[in-house]
Amino acid sequence: MSFDSQTEIPLRLDARDVPQWDHSADVVVVGFGCAGASAAIEASRAGARVCVLEVAGGPGGTSALSGGLVYLGGGTPIQRACGFEDSTDDMFRYMMAACGPDPDEAMIAAYCEGSLEHFDWLDACGVPFRASFFPDAHEPFETDDGLTYSGSEHVHPFCEIARPAPRGHIPRKVRNKGGLLMQHLVATAEAAGIEVHTGTKVMALVVEGDGRIVGVVARQADGVCCVQARRGVVLTAGGFVYNEDMLAAYAPTLSRCRFKVGTEYDDGSGIRLGIAAGGHAIRMGAGDISLALFPPNDLRRGLFVNRFGQRFLNEDAYMGRAGEFFLLHQEGRGWLIVDDAVFQQPKFFPAAVAAVGDTVAELEAELGLPAPCLQDTVALYNRYAERGEDPLFHKGAGYLQPLTEPPFGAIDLGTDAAMYSVFTLGGLHIDPDGRVLRAAGEPVPGLYAAGRTTSGIAKQGYSSGMSLGDASFFGRRAGLHAAGSA
Amino acid sequence: MSFDSQTEIPLRLDARDVPQWDHSADVVVVGFGCAGASAAIEASRAGARVCVLEVAGGPGGTSALSGGLVYLGGGTPIQRACGFEDSTDDMFRYMMAACGPDPDEAMIAAYCEGSLEHFDWLDACGVPFRASFFPDAHEPFETDDGLTYSGSEHVHPFCEIARPAPRGHIPRKVRNKGGLLMQHLVATAEAAGIEVHTGTKVMALVVEGDGRIVGVVARQADGVCCVQARRGVVLTAGGFVYNEDMLAAYAPTLSRCRFKVGTEYDDGSGIRLGIAAGGHAIRMGAGDISLALFPPNDLRRGLFVNRFGQRFLNEDAYMGRAGEFFLLHQEGRGWLIVDDAVFQQPKFFPAAVAAVGDTVAELEAELGLPAPCLQDTVALYNRYAERGEDPLFHKGAGYLQPLTEPPFGAIDLGTDAAMYSVFTLGGLHIDPDGRVLRAAGEPVPGLYAAGRTTSGIAKQGYSSGMSLGDASFFGRRAGLHAAGSA
Repeated sequence: MSFDSQTEIPLRLDARDVPQWDHSADVVVVGFGCAGASAAIEASRAGARVCVLEVAGGPGGTSALSGGLVYLGGGTPIQRACGFEDSTDDMFRYMMAACGPDPDEAMIAAYCEGSLEHFDWLDACGVPFRASFFPDAHEPFETDDGLTYSGSEHVHPFCEIARPAPRGHIPRKVRNKGGLLMQHLVATAEAAGIEVHTGTKVMALVVEGDGRIVGVVARQADGVCCVQARRGVVLTAGGFVYNEDMLAAYAPTLSRCRFKVGTEYDDGSGIRLGIAAGGHAIRMGAGDISLALFPPNDLRRGLFVNRFGQRFLNEDAYMGRAGEFFLLHQEGRGWLIVDDAVFQQPKFFPAAVAAVGDTVAELEAELGLPAPCLQDTVALYNRYAERGEDPLFHKGAGYLQPLTEPPFGAIDLGTDAAMYSVFTLGGLHIDPDGRVLRAAGEPVPGLYAAGRTTSGIAKQGYSSGMSLGDASFFGRRAGLHAAGSA
Repeated sequence: MSFDSQTEIPLRLDARDVPQWDHSADVVVVGFGCAGASAAIEASRAGARVCVLEVAGGPGGTSALSGGLVYLGGGTPIQRACGFEDSTDDMFRYMMAACGPDPDEAMIAAYCEGSLEHFDWLDACGVPFRASFFPDAHEPFETDDGLTYSGSEHVHPFCEIARPAPRGHIPRKVRNKGGLLMQHLVATAEAAGIEVHTGTKVMALVVEGDGRIVGVVARQADGVCCVQARRGVVLTAGGFVYNEDMLAAYAPTLSRCRFKVGTEYDDGSGIRLGIAAGGHAIRMGAGDISLALFPPNDLRRGLFVNRFGQRFLNEDAYMGRAGEFFLLHQEGRGWLIVDDAVFQQPKFFPAAVAAVGDTVAELEAELGLPAPCLQDTVALYNRYAERGEDPLFHKGAGYLQPLTEPPFGAIDLGTDAAMYSVFTLGGLHIDPDGRVLRAAGEPVPGLYAAGRTTSGIAKQGYSSGMSLGDASFFGRRAGLHAAGSA
């Protein structure tokens, strides 16, 4: 078998059909975003010769375009300096409650137990975190603060399950925080002596007769090259939010979100390579579904209601939880009900006002709802809010304020009107060493993965920072394990 | 490479490593349930030599233990004889609305367009259907009637989307209807001259260098045998509801259902074989989630409410829709609220009474709900039910009756208390010819699948009869296509 620029290359190639190895390394890393850089650094430090193949013209991937948050806890220096107590156990309890259904306990335990060391590692890579707390939980925010609540730790029901602590750690930069993170990780990787080929698209994994992955076939501008991986291949090629066919097959509901977080290279190619090599992909319907409505946070004094005029979630929940509840459980339809005292324009996206009325009854009629369903909802809320209670949904007391001041309004939170953003959380099934697993449970020898090519540590119930968090954390482990896997 | 009873056999074997072919056939069918029998019949009739390998001691699989319903429409002789008009178009519109999210239009179109011919085929196989309509939509029912509503065709919102018609076709037998179906399909397959090996577990698919599937490796009591498949292999090995690890990885929520519909052989082996051979599995979280509460159907005059005391679904929806809404959208928690006029003991499972009260307010307090959330719900319902309306959830007028007669009660419909049954609907991605697809969209040459080894025609929103329906329909197509695929 020989390759030229016209040859169609299958996703999986038998080693016996590789004409010759054009290059050779101990560990081949596919992708140079956060997961790939972390894998490359650790593999190289463990003594492996590392070759990174990146499809884009330069490093960074989607990570470089992101908000840069890394989910870390257990009492990091930043948490402590900002006056927050945290423990590995509280972090674990929060993640087990939030990252479900049926979160992967072994993965979460490893992640929490390693979190303090992982902070030190990022710090040693030069990623700067300022010891200052940004109190108004939301994104994007334009300060260089280093710590914020990036999930629902401090609100119902999680504040009753684990002691709340902010765990969103943000590189010290006003804008382009993800770019700063990647700048340091890429520099650290390059300083470790790795070899990088950009503009290089991996087309196939090369498989020995016993199932072991021993290399890749990649396409470059000037032809096709076969790269031997003496110890292992690490797939860190992003998610699939930019692959319409894969979204339709696996996660059709996610495609209703208007804004996709990613680049055109989030085309699922890493996942497809892994499946073709015998791995399997899990929780492929999962995604981070963020509904950006706040700031201003005082808007949370309004009421999330569904198309039946019913509340269904505490309005102080994090935007990833709100988006998930609206999209997955309410058909992506509903409103924020406000009165004149509560209403303000959202900071980043103008409110789509669906209806206004001088009374709640009028608003209800404007929305086409049968009386008195919305009136009942508002009356029940007001009755308890007056005494600082929310017995059904447990919104925090700070946002409990009866809605009484006309006019009343409904901000459209349907997927057609509001700002839903999404990226995929489903992907290859890995173990805590970053090994890609088969459906029967055993690893594919020589194959590793991390980042959004894998099923995230948040199977659903995403908190910001968990994606860069698991990408860097398990990327490191994958690189380390691959380097040691002679 | 040679095999003995101790050899560990991987799920995928390179053809170059097969020592010799012990048997040979044109088409090898893995599994002898409804999908396998249908594939074997059509492949054999198309002139192929067919070999069926079944892990159990005899044929039938889970199909033989089922209710035997086959979802058919478009104006079958049974529908017409019972006085129902139906059209391919109405059937298509219902399925496109019900089998979502994002149902597979090509698969549904093929299924609907072929439905009348498929009825004739089943009839020619000797499967008897009596031209009599069973009016009270529920299962299991102990008559030998041949037609019933087996979905939500006749209720909101589907009755406004497509002209309703009953499409559940049932073999003429009072009990063990699925057994009767399989008796005829197996007899037809055997009469077609196929070769059957029971007690034979397929361990591996054999793959040529170009990715084509050319045979299987199977384990029998007395050793291991390699069976060549000159034209193709059809995987019809059931679902994965009896594989705890796969449920945890793909569909953890489903494991909360108390009753699993299947046999121990629904262990996902067909899906795992297909993945290892390069296919991909989609919608793996989907399942038929049935909540059996009715009959008596008059209990539908009660109110489904969630843990916040809110209604969320018309109570005349089919049990597969009710189970899905409770489990997937209400955390598997809630009640049926009844008054003394409405309450009767469910026929098949005793009601778990969660609370009783002389007033709705008392019931509400007993349930631990803050006043007046449940009182509001009942008052709103009663207000409109008095005039035969249900403006929020559109329950049919026949079940609208204000709840006014004390005492009031709540039947526990939580997963711990009520009768939830489940089987998996996720599986290998096939096209309308039954060809197993790779994640990139192209078929795995020589590999076919049908039945619960594949992603069902109902991706979610199951109506009874769709599983035997797609198993037999696409089983036939898989067999036919494999036979012609020289």
